[in-house]
Amino acid sequence: MKKLLFATGNKGKIIEAEHILGIPLETVNIEIDEVQSMDLEYVAKRKAEAAFKILRKPVIIDDVGVFIEAWNGFPGPFAKFILDKLGNRRVLEILKSEKNRNVTVTSAVGYRDGKNTHVFLGEVQATLAHEERGTEGWGFDPIIIPLGQKLTYAEMGLLGKSKLSHRKKALEKFRKFLDSQKK
Amino acid sequence: MKKLLFATGNKGKIIEAEHILGIPLETVNIEIDEVQSMDLEYVAKRKAEAAFKILRKPVIIDDVGVFIEAWNGFPGPFAKFILDKLGNRRVLEILKSEKNRNVTVTSAVGYRDGKNTHVFLGEVQATLAHEERGTEGWGFDPIIIPLGQKLTYAEMGLLGKSKLSHRKKALEKFRKFLDSQKK
Repeated sequence: MKKLLFATGNKGKIIEAEHILGIPLETVNIEIDEVQSMDLEYVAKRKAEAAFKILRKPVIIDDVGVFIEAWNGFPGPFAKFILDKLGNRRVLEILKSEKNRNVTVTSAVGYRDGKNTHVFLGEVQATLAHEERGTEGWGFDPIIIPLGQKLTYAEMGLLGKSKLSHRKKALEKFRKFLDSQKK
Repeated sequence: MKKLLFATGNKGKIIEAEHILGIPLETVNIEIDEVQSMDLEYVAKRKAEAAFKILRKPVIIDDVGVFIEAWNGFPGPFAKFILDKLGNRRVLEILKSEKNRNVTVTSAVGYRDGKNTHVFLGEVQATLAHEERGTEGWGFDPIIIPLGQKLTYAEMGLLGKSKLSHRKKALEKFRKFLDSQKK
């Protein structure tokens, strides 16, 4: 099987995705514009199309949304910008007085096979930690505690996280889709 | 002079722009995708190009960014989403304990003349009010007090606001550009 392209600059994501999909992937690091929308599925669909337009080859992309219940879902797909501008510590400070710590973390894996665009969503219900905990992973990992767990993603480590993460759920749907294509 | 197209669904903006530019405009209400970026100038440039691609005619677009100093500039161009999800009252609640009330409100007027894309930026330094005040205007108007003023945009009314607003500054640059093109 030819290696599938995964457009990402994040090597951790590649390791995680290869582990879950059980196939080797080829990384390609390209700048892809994303559309402004609170609808993560739409953002991922457009991102896969944009990536294909650049590469002219079947390509996987991914995007993540962090939907904070106390903020009526904001920032959603804009989470990366709030993280970049404020960082986890400041985000927690701002959310300090919020009693509602519920958050939905959603992974969208987009795949443009040349003819069609498919988006696979994986959702994890979680709570926001009160302080950063753990050092592994990236992004919001140190402040996300999946429901029913005691550890943050960053405390679980890549292997622990990839057993139950939002990305794992999305990638598993994608793997099933790939399997169904082989038949 | 042929009426210029202004792609917006906001009639208030048209009235404000006609008043400042001193020329009649034609509204066209189309859905234009915007790119995810904290760089408002880039967002406006791409938006003007996208609008032209749809309309195939010279077109004006505008976009706004609200850069909150205490939040290291966030939400910037994503202000419309935070407003939509939380509203001004909730935004002020979240910012309640912030001593630094400084905010930069930036208007970007984009114009694609068919050959080139021009972006004109207008910036207003302001402070965030402690509660919503005034009923005119739209968006963040009830919580924005331009530096040196006592009233919020929403208390000033359209006429008062359009004398000193971020959009006025951007539109004046645009008017000068249009004038220079006539020579």
